[in-house]
Amino acid sequence: MTAFANVTIKKKANIYFDGKVTSRTITLSDGSEKTLGIMLPGEYEFGTQKPEFMEITAGELSVQLPGFDDWVIVAAGQSFNVPGEAKFRLKVRTVTDYCCTYLD
Amino acid sequence: MTAFANVTIKKKANIYFDGKVTSRTITLSDGSEKTLGIMLPGEYEFGTQKPEFMEITAGELSVQLPGFDDWVIVAAGQSFNVPGEAKFRLKVRTVTDYCCTYLD
Repeated sequence: MTAFANVTIKKKANIYFDGKVTSRTITLSDGSEKTLGIMLPGEYEFGTQKPEFMEITAGELSVQLPGFDDWVIVAAGQSFNVPGEAKFRLKVRTVTDYCCTYLD
Repeated sequence: MTAFANVTIKKKANIYFDGKVTSRTITLSDGSEKTLGIMLPGEYEFGTQKPEFMEITAGELSVQLPGFDDWVIVAAGQSFNVPGEAKFRLKVRTVTDYCCTYLD
């Protein structure tokens, strides 16, 4: 899928880490939410509420999932899941474009 | 208006200046296009095709419009127009969130 149709998008962005991580929230026709975001190179820790499905559409990063010591490389075209109510860490190597789906 | 409804959004971002300027393209139900974008601090020159209406929803910048020597400060809640087929320059002072409408 290269585009999402019949969505509502908030006009204002979500801005984190001095703008090095930003995203746009869209609500799909079924009421579910996604964020489409950009991360610049750097190291970040995020916390989830709902479980998340993270698709990387451009760029490359390493992710350390909750409970793991290892870092896993994720590149454009790849994805990973994060449990809810958890923290995970990212080392973003190149400008990364992502689509995050919030799961119930 | 705090959100745009019934739009189609491309999954992939537009990425410029090593990710310091990024945007998302949305198509409204009337077929018109807007981009919602983020600019990090820096100096940029842009070129237009269609005329553009630029709304600044967060941040602060100075703009030098085509044919002008002066720089004009534009802050959150303000906007400016750029003619088509023209170049304009921006000095972005703080992380800036914008909505660009392409006019015919």
